[in-house]
Amino acid sequence: MELKETMLERQDIFKGRVVSLHVDKVSLPDGGTSYREIVDHPGGVGIVALDDNGCVPLVTQYRYAFSRNMVEIPAGKREVGEEPFLTAQRELLEEVGATAAKWTDLGALIPSPGCYGETLYLYLAQELSYSQAQPDEDEFLTVEHVPFDALYQRCMAGEIKDAKTVAAVLKVKLLLGL
Amino acid sequence: MELKETMLERQDIFKGRVVSLHVDKVSLPDGGTSYREIVDHPGGVGIVALDDNGCVPLVTQYRYAFSRNMVEIPAGKREVGEEPFLTAQRELLEEVGATAAKWTDLGALIPSPGCYGETLYLYLAQELSYSQAQPDEDEFLTVEHVPFDALYQRCMAGEIKDAKTVAAVLKVKLLLGL
Repeated sequence: MELKETMLERQDIFKGRVVSLHVDKVSLPDGGTSYREIVDHPGGVGIVALDDNGCVPLVTQYRYAFSRNMVEIPAGKREVGEEPFLTAQRELLEEVGATAAKWTDLGALIPSPGCYGETLYLYLAQELSYSQAQPDEDEFLTVEHVPFDALYQRCMAGEIKDAKTVAAVLKVKLLLGL
Repeated sequence: MELKETMLERQDIFKGRVVSLHVDKVSLPDGGTSYREIVDHPGGVGIVALDDNGCVPLVTQYRYAFSRNMVEIPAGKREVGEEPFLTAQRELLEEVGATAAKWTDLGALIPSPGCYGETLYLYLAQELSYSQAQPDEDEFLTVEHVPFDALYQRCMAGEIKDAKTVAAVLKVKLLLGL
């Protein structure tokens, strides 16, 4: 069964600092037509940074879309043209002040494939050195370091809901047999 | 450190069939102001349906935002006011033709907390009975049944990238000790 949908027309609705939105009229597999509402996003990275004591830095930020603070692994958006691995190194330094001598690729994650064009790249960082965090001027966040197992339990219990954090932490758990 | 951001003004940009978009001017913790681009989404569910032979149905759909087919667990959007558990029962029947006698709550997932207001509810369905799938008229998809371990390996290898699928499959792996 051929599932492909082909663009017939595009209407650009919005171009913002982070996301943009367009609505495309598409042809469907059965010859009919429909509309697809697509939000474009530059994509980004998420990093599980595991230190020699088995602890992981977590970032707490106010997430305005959900009107509350959320706990997440260090993460950030890609700059235009930036390689994801460079984004990961940059964000780990900026948000929690760490550099890592050992990096493991945990694969890509598509948070919401229906309407949202974001791709995230997940990494495990080990052999860490900590210095001073360098958050962006308009970034307000707090950092705590928690034992990996406590973080894993919070993911399994549904207390941590951020998709990149859950996916990356469970991958690390299974990959390293922690 | 108080991280809360407070809305000062709202500009409604777009209201579509699935998503809507607004831009809010907000006050920041340091007294400054910024803008938040927020995409609203009705949210939905994702279901790992594990049969007595250890197989799981997977849905292949064309994901227009990524210009390719993607493999995902059965999933779908909530109707207005619908309880997530009812959405899960409905979508499992519609997409793969299954009902389940045993359901386990796998917790909620927030796919992209920065700009995208979607919350997904994840479930494990067991003790399945299969009948005829009842896809919506404008839904084009194929269903395959794969052994759980093969699905798990595809998630770990990064071949399956859909966040709800990765998170739900790894939770089931760890919950059931499969």
